[in-house]
Amino acid sequence: MRATVLYRAGDVRIEHVPDARLIEPTDALVTVSRACICGSDLWPYSLMEPGEAARRMGHEAIGVVADVGADVRTLKVGDLVVMPFAFSDGTCAFCHEGLHTSCIHGGFFGTVEVPGAQAEALRVPLADGTLVVLAVGADDALLPSLLTLSDVMGTGHHAARAANVGRGKTVAVVGDGAVGLCGVIAARRLGAERIIILGRHPDRIALAQEFGATDIVSERGAAAVERVRQLTGGLGAHSVLECVGTGEAMLTAIGIARAGGAVGRVGVPHYEAIPASEPAFYNNVTVSGGPAPVRAYIAELLPDVLEGRIQPGRVFDRVVSLDEVPAGYRAMNERQAIKVMVKP
Amino acid sequence: MRATVLYRAGDVRIEHVPDARLIEPTDALVTVSRACICGSDLWPYSLMEPGEAARRMGHEAIGVVADVGADVRTLKVGDLVVMPFAFSDGTCAFCHEGLHTSCIHGGFFGTVEVPGAQAEALRVPLADGTLVVLAVGADDALLPSLLTLSDVMGTGHHAARAANVGRGKTVAVVGDGAVGLCGVIAARRLGAERIIILGRHPDRIALAQEFGATDIVSERGAAAVERVRQLTGGLGAHSVLECVGTGEAMLTAIGIARAGGAVGRVGVPHYEAIPASEPAFYNNVTVSGGPAPVRAYIAELLPDVLEGRIQPGRVFDRVVSLDEVPAGYRAMNERQAIKVMVKP
Repeated sequence: MRATVLYRAGDVRIEHVPDARLIEPTDALVTVSRACICGSDLWPYSLMEPGEAARRMGHEAIGVVADVGADVRTLKVGDLVVMPFAFSDGTCAFCHEGLHTSCIHGGFFGTVEVPGAQAEALRVPLADGTLVVLAVGADDALLPSLLTLSDVMGTGHHAARAANVGRGKTVAVVGDGAVGLCGVIAARRLGAERIIILGRHPDRIALAQEFGATDIVSERGAAAVERVRQLTGGLGAHSVLECVGTGEAMLTAIGIARAGGAVGRVGVPHYEAIPASEPAFYNNVTVSGGPAPVRAYIAELLPDVLEGRIQPGRVFDRVVSLDEVPAGYRAMNERQAIKVMVKP
Repeated sequence: MRATVLYRAGDVRIEHVPDARLIEPTDALVTVSRACICGSDLWPYSLMEPGEAARRMGHEAIGVVADVGADVRTLKVGDLVVMPFAFSDGTCAFCHEGLHTSCIHGGFFGTVEVPGAQAEALRVPLADGTLVVLAVGADDALLPSLLTLSDVMGTGHHAARAANVGRGKTVAVVGDGAVGLCGVIAARRLGAERIIILGRHPDRIALAQEFGATDIVSERGAAAVERVRQLTGGLGAHSVLECVGTGEAMLTAIGIARAGGAVGRVGVPHYEAIPASEPAFYNNVTVSGGPAPVRAYIAELLPDVLEGRIQPGRVFDRVVSLDEVPAGYRAMNERQAIKVMVKP
């Protein structure tokens, strides 16, 4: 079968690899209907060093169950399923608490150990705990929005939850990538009164406004902090969604948080540290977040997607075939696409 | 009058200074009945450089109102009052939200700008918003516990709140100083099932056990992390109260937090930064806390003190006169006293 392999920065290829197959009795084999390129894929695409082990990329997918192991009980061949970016057993203490990304037996797709979803098919470990069956047809117009439940919509929702978004709050979203845009959807869905998006790409900002952003801040760094303070009567935002993962974005996020407020961070941190004292400590600003337990959020978000109340699938502005995946990486890396869908 | 002046590290003196007096019409003049030496006073006592401006120390007090400005409405001469370590107007947005330490017009006692409470008397700005009248006699046996509402009991409570302590939770308290001990009281009061104290002073540990600590960890650093993991089935503590303020204590706190848990930090940070990625981000560990809004917590904690359900005053194990304050600093700095009460 064909799959996406990243060898080093900038060197991503579609290659023929051995067919995906069941290994454990708890596995499912899934034929990929739709996959994505993720903002987090751009980190190794930009920074991976020669000598690092090659990775089979991709951690977001909708697909059809092609085979199941002997111990799989809730899935059958032919089921259309959505796959969270992490696999999880669904039975451990953390899964019961809704923190599937800390599942004791779980792990992540698209790593050196577990081949990814930018491929014709993939093996899904712990399939009963991981996959969610979708009651729609495989060519349903809802597929793009359902596909975001694999990662970006759940991740934006996690940022909003971690930042304690609630009714009447003033929310700021740092970053206008697909996760930031889904953060806008999540903030509005959770009742935010005002949603300030920090970004500077006109197409993304326009979409953010359609999703519910009320204010735009195109400045960066100290100027962005000053602008958000101006917009909020000097006080800052109750809830800040950090959807980038750079040190500058994190400093901005803490700097625009209102005293007593919270920063929900979901951008994979590509920075060393968070300053200990100013301004987080003296302002009692909470810093929360991490990898989103999207498996837990599917139950909450799925009805809103199915009934059309949220349309996170609009973040996809390019569709590529498997062979075009390298071009898709380039387009996202050069910010010519917000998010690329892969149709193998 | 006599007051405590810190000139530089190790050089704290009792001196004759001009009598405290009303300046603003919202001021009260308070004759100090009891004051304290705080763990946070030991930072400048240890680290203050020659050339830094001298400070009139002390930010915790119970006293008697001796005079009030023309605009003071809720206090009268003769009232016994407890004074939070920060002054606040009680009317701004943050005070209404219960975050008095971020009061727009507020500030802190015992700073270069605002003389402190280790003195015969002091001026209290924004007296209506700051002081709380106590319905007890000035020599009441409850005074030590009431005095902790100035700072340490409210601060321990804030650590517990920031760490999301609740019924049935496993809590770890990093530090066996007066704040850590009050953190144990707060954790038990909020329903913690298990309370692990990290400390190594036998007298303090004994008191922690009387306050409700169920497990003792005397190791430090990586060994402490390993020990807490052993005690918690490998999972860590739901809630960690960081009551020290060093980088090592903070790393330990994050390291012993359970995935999805929270660290409530109240020790004034004497470290530069919190690591961005491991383990806080990948474990979805929340870091929260800051200066405790003790003014807000007095209403919640006062009934428990008055009715004897909590006895935080037991953290005082030495009482000194004003002239003996320098000896009190030495005793706390050398860990010969947990917390020193000052009886001017």
